[in-house]
Amino acid sequence: MTVKFRKLALIGIGLIGSSIALAARRQGLADVISITTRKAETLEEARALNLGDVYSLDPAEAVAGADLVILCTPVGAYESVMKAIAPALKPGTILSDVGSVKRHVHQVVGPFVPEGVHFIPGHPMAGTEHSGPSAGFAELFSGRWSILTPEPQVDRAAVERVVAFWEAMGSDVELMDAAHHDLVVAITSHVPHLIAYNIVGTADELESVTKSEVIKFSAGGFRDFTRIAASDPVMWRDVFLTNRDAVLEMLGRFLEDLSMLQRAVRVGDGPALEELFTRTRAIRRSIIDAGQETAAPDFGRPHEAPPAPELPRFVKEHGGGEDA
Amino acid sequence: MTVKFRKLALIGIGLIGSSIALAARRQGLADVISITTRKAETLEEARALNLGDVYSLDPAEAVAGADLVILCTPVGAYESVMKAIAPALKPGTILSDVGSVKRHVHQVVGPFVPEGVHFIPGHPMAGTEHSGPSAGFAELFSGRWSILTPEPQVDRAAVERVVAFWEAMGSDVELMDAAHHDLVVAITSHVPHLIAYNIVGTADELESVTKSEVIKFSAGGFRDFTRIAASDPVMWRDVFLTNRDAVLEMLGRFLEDLSMLQRAVRVGDGPALEELFTRTRAIRRSIIDAGQETAAPDFGRPHEAPPAPELPRFVKEHGGGEDA
Repeated sequence: MTVKFRKLALIGIGLIGSSIALAARRQGLADVISITTRKAETLEEARALNLGDVYSLDPAEAVAGADLVILCTPVGAYESVMKAIAPALKPGTILSDVGSVKRHVHQVVGPFVPEGVHFIPGHPMAGTEHSGPSAGFAELFSGRWSILTPEPQVDRAAVERVVAFWEAMGSDVELMDAAHHDLVVAITSHVPHLIAYNIVGTADELESVTKSEVIKFSAGGFRDFTRIAASDPVMWRDVFLTNRDAVLEMLGRFLEDLSMLQRAVRVGDGPALEELFTRTRAIRRSIIDAGQETAAPDFGRPHEAPPAPELPRFVKEHGGGEDA
Repeated sequence: MTVKFRKLALIGIGLIGSSIALAARRQGLADVISITTRKAETLEEARALNLGDVYSLDPAEAVAGADLVILCTPVGAYESVMKAIAPALKPGTILSDVGSVKRHVHQVVGPFVPEGVHFIPGHPMAGTEHSGPSAGFAELFSGRWSILTPEPQVDRAAVERVVAFWEAMGSDVELMDAAHHDLVVAITSHVPHLIAYNIVGTADELESVTKSEVIKFSAGGFRDFTRIAASDPVMWRDVFLTNRDAVLEMLGRFLEDLSMLQRAVRVGDGPALEELFTRTRAIRRSIIDAGQETAAPDFGRPHEAPPAPELPRFVKEHGGGEDA
């Protein structure tokens, strides 16, 4: 299905908003891309990067006449955004978002959605640890999954247009209900972020091992955690403030399992350790087979060659042939 | 300092052993590379990969006449290896290893070290999630740190030769005592592996979220953990069996901090969450600045372009000019 909107309005222009702008432009998904954000300097950055066609600090002005409006701010800002834009949303407009939690979004945004506006919340499961308008790139969603959580009564044609929009940007799309989404992301995204933030915080505060030692010797595994622990602090604060129940549920499961693992270490239960460590290896294989991860060792991180060997002293002093 | 050994014997030829073989060959660090391992098929694989010069299933034969012997098996095999090779070690030989724990290695190997043999335990802080002889590459140690933990009375000239050996393979080298090493790696490597194994195990056993959902939506953060949770199961079993005290100490700190973070989520303490999430961002920056991590977003993972935009129907059916 070919999809095209007359006017796409992006509220917020960080990593996700700017990536949508670039991908929508490249794929020709909107005649006009309208960008609005709270801070004047961020808007100027977006303009300098040529991310859109029209720019405004006034969200109501930005959404006027738009047939697709996507909220791309941290979730904590949705309520004030909705107060500002709701009166400017015309019947037939599609309203979506990219927030990492969905039950809360339905609760907060739902009451502001005007009659005739199609509210189709979404969540692209893609990102990097960088943030801001300059962090975006058109390939961000390619091969990744986006989840949509419209209520059952929402107009099917509108849902299909949003599905087609994400598919045109290279994304696979799945529909599910908001409560299930929140559990899925609690285990695949939120708890991983929480424990990554936590161990990086722990390492930062030790007395027995210095911070400089943690940094020098981080290639033993620690540095893998620092990537997601470098994600946008405000966005992630809002995630944990708004997906509390699912996060605490999944964190509880994680902690139960960790208690058993802690005990296995304490009593020296080698077979239990080896069984877990063998089982977990298979999951990475499945993720690679599903096209969600690179098969290259070490994420494909660059590895530089060791220095050229020192020449024997005689060659160094007297030259050694055509290459010397 | 130029360093060269007459005969380098590698006991075990997995990821680390094979990487040493390739780097030592490339840098010209040994006249002869002798390889021994327990399984005949692994030895044949090493031979097919041309990793060494001589091959033997008999460790005593492999180390005969060697002036540098490096144990590259899982730590749990050290005792039986030492029983086999100790009688064949000549005075003046340097005996080293690459095990991830060091106090235990001193305790287990120490009693078997013959008079006149220089025992200089080591630990290169480098690796990938792959294992076996074919996983090795000469660049593995380049720019990474290797830690040596010789007792203070060990011959300085021998220690300097081992330092020069690692430096020639591109590694930076630091000396420290074994107990401190074990604490450093508990936080930079062992606890990160433990919690990665744990969350991957938790995700594998949920009923409320299917395994296929975990795999599909893993790009939200979870997949980062699967890399180190795919590391060699036997090696890591031995790590946790032999660095118990330091691991439990650091895991205790991690759990204390996680309890506070869990509480912050439960009570909705936004400022506490944002403060931690901001602080942890700085640590990644330091690791990148120290040359221990790539600055590329998402570890430099490949991102593919979205599909080419669909052409308007008229162009598809009737052709559209010179490119059609």
